[in-house]
Amino acid sequence: MTTPPDIIRAAYAELIVTDLAAARWFYVDVLGLVVTAEEPEALYLRAFEEYTHHSLVLRAGPTPALARLAYRVRGPEQLTVAERYFAGIGVETRRVAAGTTRGIGEAVRVHDPLGFPVEFFYETTHTERFTQHYHRQPGNAISRLDHFNVMVPDVRAAYDYYTGLGFGVSETIEDSDSLYATWLFRKPTVHDIAITGGDGPRLHHIAFASHERHQILHTCDVLGALRAEHHIERGPGRHGVSNAFYLYLRDPDGHRIEIYTSDYYTGDPDNPTVRWDVTDNRRRSFWGHEVVPSWYNEASEVLNLDGGPVPISSPPVHEASAATIGADGFGVAGTGENRQGFKLGHQA
Amino acid sequence: MTTPPDIIRAAYAELIVTDLAAARWFYVDVLGLVVTAEEPEALYLRAFEEYTHHSLVLRAGPTPALARLAYRVRGPEQLTVAERYFAGIGVETRRVAAGTTRGIGEAVRVHDPLGFPVEFFYETTHTERFTQHYHRQPGNAISRLDHFNVMVPDVRAAYDYYTGLGFGVSETIEDSDSLYATWLFRKPTVHDIAITGGDGPRLHHIAFASHERHQILHTCDVLGALRAEHHIERGPGRHGVSNAFYLYLRDPDGHRIEIYTSDYYTGDPDNPTVRWDVTDNRRRSFWGHEVVPSWYNEASEVLNLDGGPVPISSPPVHEASAATIGADGFGVAGTGENRQGFKLGHQA
Amino acid sequence: MTTPPDIIRAAYAELIVTDLAAARWFYVDVLGLVVTAEEPEALYLRAFEEYTHHSLVLRAGPTPALARLAYRVRGPEQLTVAERYFAGIGVETRRVAAGTTRGIGEAVRVHDPLGFPVEFFYETTHTERFTQHYHRQPGNAISRLDHFNVMVPDVRAAYDYYTGLGFGVSETIEDSDSLYATWLFRKPTVHDIAITGGDGPRLHHIAFASHERHQILHTCDVLGALRAEHHIERGPGRHGVSNAFYLYLRDPDGHRIEIYTSDYYTGDPDNPTVRWDVTDNRRRSFWGHEVVPSWYNEASEVLNLDGGPVPISSPPVHEASAATIGADGFGVAGTGENRQGFKLGHQA
Amino acid sequence: MTTPPDIIRAAYAELIVTDLAAARWFYVDVLGLVVTAEEPEALYLRAFEEYTHHSLVLRAGPTPALARLAYRVRGPEQLTVAERYFAGIGVETRRVAAGTTRGIGEAVRVHDPLGFPVEFFYETTHTERFTQHYHRQPGNAISRLDHFNVMVPDVRAAYDYYTGLGFGVSETIEDSDSLYATWLFRKPTVHDIAITGGDGPRLHHIAFASHERHQILHTCDVLGALRAEHHIERGPGRHGVSNAFYLYLRDPDGHRIEIYTSDYYTGDPDNPTVRWDVTDNRRRSFWGHEVVPSWYNEASEVLNLDGGPVPISSPPVHEASAATIGADGFGVAGTGENRQGFKLGHQA
Repeated sequence: MTTPPDIIRAAYAELIVTDLAAARWFYVDVLGLVVTAEEPEALYLRAFEEYTHHSLVLRAGPTPALARLAYRVRGPEQLTVAERYFAGIGVETRRVAAGTTRGIGEAVRVHDPLGFPVEFFYETTHTERFTQHYHRQPGNAISRLDHFNVMVPDVRAAYDYYTGLGFGVSETIEDSDSLYATWLFRKPTVHDIAITGGDGPRLHHIAFASHERHQILHTCDVLGALRAEHHIERGPGRHGVSNAFYLYLRDPDGHRIEIYTSDYYTGDPDNPTVRWDVTDNRRRSFWGHEVVPSWYNEASEVLNLDGGPVPISSPPVHEASAATIGADGFGVAGTGENRQGFKLGHQA
Repeated sequence: MTTPPDIIRAAYAELIVTDLAAARWFYVDVLGLVVTAEEPEALYLRAFEEYTHHSLVLRAGPTPALARLAYRVRGPEQLTVAERYFAGIGVETRRVAAGTTRGIGEAVRVHDPLGFPVEFFYETTHTERFTQHYHRQPGNAISRLDHFNVMVPDVRAAYDYYTGLGFGVSETIEDSDSLYATWLFRKPTVHDIAITGGDGPRLHHIAFASHERHQILHTCDVLGALRAEHHIERGPGRHGVSNAFYLYLRDPDGHRIEIYTSDYYTGDPDNPTVRWDVTDNRRRSFWGHEVVPSWYNEASEVLNLDGGPVPISSPPVHEASAATIGADGFGVAGTGENRQGFKLGHQA
Repeated sequence: MTTPPDIIRAAYAELIVTDLAAARWFYVDVLGLVVTAEEPEALYLRAFEEYTHHSLVLRAGPTPALARLAYRVRGPEQLTVAERYFAGIGVETRRVAAGTTRGIGEAVRVHDPLGFPVEFFYETTHTERFTQHYHRQPGNAISRLDHFNVMVPDVRAAYDYYTGLGFGVSETIEDSDSLYATWLFRKPTVHDIAITGGDGPRLHHIAFASHERHQILHTCDVLGALRAEHHIERGPGRHGVSNAFYLYLRDPDGHRIEIYTSDYYTGDPDNPTVRWDVTDNRRRSFWGHEVVPSWYNEASEVLNLDGGPVPISSPPVHEASAATIGADGFGVAGTGENRQGFKLGHQA
Repeated sequence: MTTPPDIIRAAYAELIVTDLAAARWFYVDVLGLVVTAEEPEALYLRAFEEYTHHSLVLRAGPTPALARLAYRVRGPEQLTVAERYFAGIGVETRRVAAGTTRGIGEAVRVHDPLGFPVEFFYETTHTERFTQHYHRQPGNAISRLDHFNVMVPDVRAAYDYYTGLGFGVSETIEDSDSLYATWLFRKPTVHDIAITGGDGPRLHHIAFASHERHQILHTCDVLGALRAEHHIERGPGRHGVSNAFYLYLRDPDGHRIEIYTSDYYTGDPDNPTVRWDVTDNRRRSFWGHEVVPSWYNEASEVLNLDGGPVPISSPPVHEASAATIGADGFGVAGTGENRQGFKLGHQA
C-alpha cells in the first residue's frame, strides 16, 4: 500500500448558498467571522486566530450544497504523494492550478470513496492573524475552524478509509455488532473529521472553535435578541463524546454549523480511544438531553467535482435496535409510538 | 385597607422529602449547600453568602410536599402588622413561638388565600457568611436563595393578593384576555415570587442564585459525571422573562430546583413592567427552546398548617388558546396532535 | 432631627472633561456605554440595563473635575423632604428646574458638608432598556452604574454624614483608633458611596457593574489591542472589601472608573458589617497585590454649585502608622525607604 | 548531522521539595492535582485530562531544586535515536531501566548542553483519564501540563540547541542586536519550552493548562481565603507573548508554577513566528502591567544527573540597554534609580 499524504488538518469548506446576503448576515454579522475577500458571488471568511486565507468559502448557487472539503498537507510535495495514494486505491484525482480557489495554491482534488468532493493543498495566501485584535472581536468571537462532520450510510467503510489516510481514532459510538459513529484526527484534538451514520454522502456540519463557553452562550443571546432564535437547532450543551461544549446552528440555507470549545489533547501515539456504548444516553449529550430529530435526519447534499449532485444512499435498516437506541442505531429518531417525551433518559 | 407587613424577601422554604439521605446527597453533595444544622429527621441548609440560619429545610416525611414558604419581614413589630393585615382580609393567622422552626424566632403563619402555608418572621440565628470561604466552595457554588415559584389555577387572583401585600410587578406573560404568569418582588431583583398558571396550589420550584453561568454549567457536568443526569429537567438556557440564565433540576423526590443567575435591578419605583405576549416563543426560553412538558405539568403538592394535603384545583379551560399557545395558555403542553416536534418555533 | 430624604441609589455623575472626543472614545468606543443624547459640549450616557436617561454626563470644560453626584429619591415629594433635612443641618439648598440637566426633572442641589456638589432628583426621562439587546452589546458590556467613591480628609465625619442620611454600613477598614475607609449603601448592594481617607474633597472613582468577570477582562484585552493599556491603573483583581471583582481605569482626563462585579446582597436590616483590620493586606486586594501608589494619591477635583473649584484639605498625619499600614493609614504609599517591592505581603 | 529524536511534548518534571507535606498541601489541596501514587518520600501527580502516569514528581530532599525535565518521544525506538543524536553533538547519555522513575519505562537521560537534567522516554503506565470526572474537579481544575520555562545566560545558544532538536519557534523577544527570550514547541501550542535570559541554568517555571480563565481566578480566591495569598507572585493577566491568560504562583519551596490558558494553534508548518520588540511593554503583560522583579530574578537551581548542584553563570552585561528595557535586556529589574513606580508604561 502506498503512503498517504501527510495531512495536517481540516482546513476549509466551500458551501453553496442560495442567498449570499443572507449568508453574509449569518456568518459575518451574527457569528463575527472575518471577511478576507469578497466577490459578487462569493465570500472568503476566516476566524480570528487564522492566518491562512480562509476557512470557509460561501458561494452563491441555485441549491444549498457542500462544494468541497479541504485538508491542508505538510508541503507542496504532498500533492504528488496524494496523487499516488489515490491512484493506488483506484480513485481518480484532478490537479487544479493555483488560484482555482482564491487564496489557495495548486491543489489535488478527489471525489473520495465516500462520495465527498475533497481537496488537498499546501500553498495558501497568508493574512493577518487577528488573535490579539480584541477591539475587533465580538462577545462571541470564533478562533478557528475545528472539524468537519459527514454523514454516510456505511460508517465502517468510512472509518477504514480515513484510518487508511493516517487519521487517528479518538472516540466511537458502537455496540458489540456495529460502529455507529467515529471521530478521527490529524491535528491533536478530538477530531478533524467525524463520521455519523445515516443517509449519505451528506455534510452533517462544519465546526468552529471558540476559547470559552460564554462566547458560545453569547451567540444564542444575539440570535434571541434578533428574533432569529430559530437558527439554534441543538444546545448549548456538553457532548459526552469529545467532552466539548457545543452549540448547533442552522444557517439561512439549512447548513449546520457547530460552535465548539474545550475538547482535549490527543497527540500522544497511545492516546486511548474512548468507546461509548450506543445505549449510554450521555454519548451525545453528557447532560442526558434528547437529541432533536432534525439533528439526526437533516444534512446538506454534496456536489461532485463537476458541480453535480451526488446521489444519496440509505444505510441498511437495523430492525432490532431501532426502537431502543435512537438515531445512532440508524433507526427512526423519536417518531411514532417510540416517542414518549424528550428528556429524562427515555433513549436508552 | 390595613397596611401589609413590610416584607424584605423570600427567606426560606421547608420541603418534605421521603429519603433524607438521598436529599442530602442532592442538596449537599451535588449542589454544595452548606449544612447549618442536622437532625435525624431534618437538615437546615444555607448558601455561601447567607448569614441567616437557613434558606432551605429538608424534613423527612411520608410523601413529598411543600411544608412552608417563609418571608422575612423588616422587624419583630411586623408580626403584629401581619396579624392585623390578614385579619383585615379574613385570613386566620397563627403565632408560633421562637424555635418552632430551628433557627427561626417568633413567627406568624397563615394558610394564604392561594392555598399555601406561609410564614412571616424577623428573628433568626446568625451563622457565618462563607462569601469568601473560597476554599470551601465547589465549582458550582450557590450564593443565596432567590425566589419561589408557585402554580395556581387563578393567576389574576394571585397577582391581586401579592400586589396587595406590597409586591412590585416586574414582568408578566399575557394577552389581551388573560394573565398567564407574573413575577413579583420585594427585594430589587426580578422576583421573590413567580406565579404560574396551572393546577394548584402547588409549588413549581425554589430558585437559588449563583454569580456566574459557568457555575451553573458545572452542576450539569457533575450530574453527568455521576450518571445522575436525569435530575436535569430543563436548561441550561436564557429566560426571556427576567433575562436570567437558568437550570431546572428535579431532586430525588421530584421537587424542582432552579439555579439562576444574572437578572436585573428593579429597585426604582418606576421600574417598567415587561409584558411578554403569550405567543412570543422567547418568553420562556430566549433561545426559542421548547419547554419540556413536565415543566408545565408537574409540581409539588403543598401542606396546610396542620400538615395535611391541600386539595388541588384546575384552571378553567381556555378552548381557543389551547392549541396555539402551549401551557402558558393553560392548555395541554405538547401532547397528541398539537405536538409536532420540540424546537424551532412551533409553539406560537 | 428631621427625616432625611428617601434615597434609592447612586444615580448619575457629571464629569468635566477637557477633550470630549477623547472622552467619547474612552466611554463609548472602548467601554461601550450607550449614548442617550449628544450635544456639541456634552454626552449623556447609560449602561445596557438602565432605563433612566443617563448615569454619566460628560461635559466639556477647561479642567477635569467632578461637576455633580446625583442620587435618585423615591418620589417627587422627597425634594421637599431634602430641603427640610438640609435646612435642619444648616446646609443651603438650591431647587433647579426640570431640564437644568437634560433628561432630569426638577431637582434639589446642595454643596454637601463634605464639600461635594450633590443633586437629589426623582423625575427622569425614560429610555429603552437594552438588557436583551445582545446584538448591540460588546464583549465588555456594562450593565449599570453601581457606586461613587469619594476621598475626604475626615472619614469619620463623612461616615456620620452619610449614616445620618439613612445609609447602611456594609464594610469598614479600621483599627482600634481610626476609621480609614467605609462603604455605605441605600440599594441592597455593598455600596452606593464609599469613603476613602486622603486629601479631599475629591472624587476617587465612579463604578459601573458588569455581570461576569470575563466582561471585565475583555476591557483589558481591548485596551491592550489598541495600545492604550496605560488606561489600566489597577487590577483586575478581587477586592477583600465587598468581595467584588474589580478593574480600575483612568480616562483620558485622569478620572478613575471602576468596573465591578459580584458583590453581595445587603438588604436585610441586620446585615452584618464587615470590619477589616487596616493591617490585613487582603482588604484592598484579596490576592495580596500591593496597591499602586497613584490609586491612593490621585483623584479628581470637585466643583462647587457655581462651577468653581473646591479647596482641598489634607487629613492629619498619623505618624505612628505611616510606615506600616500604607495609604489606608493616611501615610505615604510606597515611597522612599519604606518602599521595598510591590508584592508578597510587605504592606502589613 | 544526525536525526534528533522525535519528541512529542513536554511530559513531566521532577522537583526536589524540602517539606513534602507542605508541597502536598500546595499541589494537591490547593491546585487540585490528582495523586497517582504516593511514597514516603515522593508524590506522583497528574492533571485531570492526563492518562500518562504523572506530569509532576515531588521528591523530598535537602534543598529545593529541579531534578529532571522529561520529554516524551514518539516510540521506544526513539531512545536509540536520542543516544545517537546526543553522541553526534558530543553529549553523554545514560540509559536507565524501566521503573527508575515510578511509572516511567526505559529512558535516556542527558545533562544537556544548557546544563539541564533531561530525560527522554516513551513507555509509561497508563492511568484513568479524569476528563469527565467532574464530581472530582474543583473550581480551579487543571487539565494538563503545558510547558517548561528555563533561564539561561545565553538565549541564542539555547535557541540553537532546541531548534536543532526539531522544535518550532512560535515567538521571540528581541531587538536588532539580541534575542532576549524565545518560545519553542513540538506539540502544536505556543510552547513546550520557553527560554528566558538570566542567570542559569535555572528552572524559571513549570506551566499547567486549564480550560477557562475563571478556573485560574478561583486559585487566587482560594489562596486568599486560606490567607496564603503570598503564594501569588504575578498575575493573573494576559501575556502579550502567547496571548495566554496566566497566573504565577510560588510553591512552599519557591518553585514557580504557572497556570495558563487560551494560547493558540501552531501546528501548520508555516506558522508565523511572532517577534516582540523588547521595548514593547505589552510583551510580558498585554495589559501593560510591570513585571514584579522576583519574576525576573528568582528561579530554581537544577541538579545534574548525579544529584549534585549545577553551577550558575550570569549573562554578559548589556550596558546600553539596562536602563531602558528591564529584565528582558538582562539588566537589573526595577531597582535603584531606574525604578520609578510599577505601572503605566515606565518600562519602555
